[in-house]
Amino acid sequence: MNRRRRIYEGKAKILYEGPEPGTLIQHFKDDATAFNNQKHDKIEGKGVLNNRISEYLFQRLGEIGVPTHFIKRMNMREQLVREVEIIPVEVVVRNVAAGSIAKRLGMEEGTPLPRSIVEFYYKSDELGDPMVTEEHITAFNWAVPQEIDDMMSVALRANDFLSGLFLGIGIKLVDFKCEFGRLWENDTMRIVLADEISPDCCRLWDIESQEKLDKDRFRRDLGGLVEAYQEVARRLGLHVENNPQQNQSGPVLVRSQ
Amino acid sequence: MNRRRRIYEGKAKILYEGPEPGTLIQHFKDDATAFNNQKHDKIEGKGVLNNRISEYLFQRLGEIGVPTHFIKRMNMREQLVREVEIIPVEVVVRNVAAGSIAKRLGMEEGTPLPRSIVEFYYKSDELGDPMVTEEHITAFNWAVPQEIDDMMSVALRANDFLSGLFLGIGIKLVDFKCEFGRLWENDTMRIVLADEISPDCCRLWDIESQEKLDKDRFRRDLGGLVEAYQEVARRLGLHVENNPQQNQSGPVLVRSQ
Repeated sequence: MNRRRRIYEGKAKILYEGPEPGTLIQHFKDDATAFNNQKHDKIEGKGVLNNRISEYLFQRLGEIGVPTHFIKRMNMREQLVREVEIIPVEVVVRNVAAGSIAKRLGMEEGTPLPRSIVEFYYKSDELGDPMVTEEHITAFNWAVPQEIDDMMSVALRANDFLSGLFLGIGIKLVDFKCEFGRLWENDTMRIVLADEISPDCCRLWDIESQEKLDKDRFRRDLGGLVEAYQEVARRLGLHVENNPQQNQSGPVLVRSQ
Repeated sequence: MNRRRRIYEGKAKILYEGPEPGTLIQHFKDDATAFNNQKHDKIEGKGVLNNRISEYLFQRLGEIGVPTHFIKRMNMREQLVREVEIIPVEVVVRNVAAGSIAKRLGMEEGTPLPRSIVEFYYKSDELGDPMVTEEHITAFNWAVPQEIDDMMSVALRANDFLSGLFLGIGIKLVDFKCEFGRLWENDTMRIVLADEISPDCCRLWDIESQEKLDKDRFRRDLGGLVEAYQEVARRLGLHVENNPQQNQSGPVLVRSQ
């Protein structure tokens, strides 16, 4: 396998130059971080599970007409994606109060919100991803109003779809974070869903037991993170190979499904 | 003078029942608080200055067509206002980065913003007045979208006008906070500017010396708060009587101007 140029390394993923112009390879690491990297660990198998779950969710969203950067999964830890210009704003959709909104607005965790709420956070590790508003986003030119509208409407469509999908497998989609990028095709540009959607960036509660099946298990030292992600994958009907050899070693090309 | 019914007491003001239905008396105390009341002091003469400065600014804003709750000043510490239903959202307009936005977004204090930015904060002492977005305001029904639009446009008009007014007296309007209320007249309701606009809720920097002429003098232990407010009043052309007897004692009815 050829050496590839590393384009960007984040907390949980690495982006490499892709095989063709305009493509990238998105590699899922086993690193788990929380509280702006103050808490950090490696959880064997997490990257493989997120790669598989995110592939599945992006494919399904693509099928209902949500534009995404996803092309195909390459192997256990990697997927081929379109190269986009990431908008430096994390979009969070919330259905139930949990995490920062519960603290910020003095609500008990688990309180249903009167309606789904969209929030924006400025992507900046240095600043701890502060919450921002459309005012800040447009004033600092992180995105223009039409792009914000596009992000909001795609995020809300994804929320509707994923809420139904998870409800169908006995899981409440409490909230999720997504990111968007600008995709150029000749002279036209569209906003597409990028990054990943996985238990790393969702809150997923088992409807019966209220058990957390997401990264809060890591944030709150509940243990059993990989088992929870596996449970999500299992309920989604995904077969995730669990070969520690492959999990730990570098990328191994296997036939994508 | 008759005993009056106290309707509400806040950190810096008291509202009493007014002489006629639909009116209130807004009484300015000398209390200075900061950091959600963790810092608290009495600064003799502050209430008198804020009453006078806010009267002046509300009158001038009324003249350019900004609807306000202000009717007239009653005496050194009190003004007669229309009773409104206060919207529990503080509206902040910023022209230059200072205070919380500078910290939140990692900007140096004094950096001009690319354009004026409007922010909303949920009025809650318990929660420390958290920043919120239109999403939260509408989801929790604190205000409807049309009311938010009205607040924003009035706040931006006030910002234009006050920026010019202060520039004319050698002061940079860095930012200010304002509040709005619903005023019912028969069956119609309008959003009007309420509360106060004074150096307690503005950042005002002397253009030459960059000296702070606002409540940051108290927040940051710079001293000379009353002198700074007096300087603002003086530059606005206001004659503020300084009779400690009257400042300290209860309200004394004097002819309003």
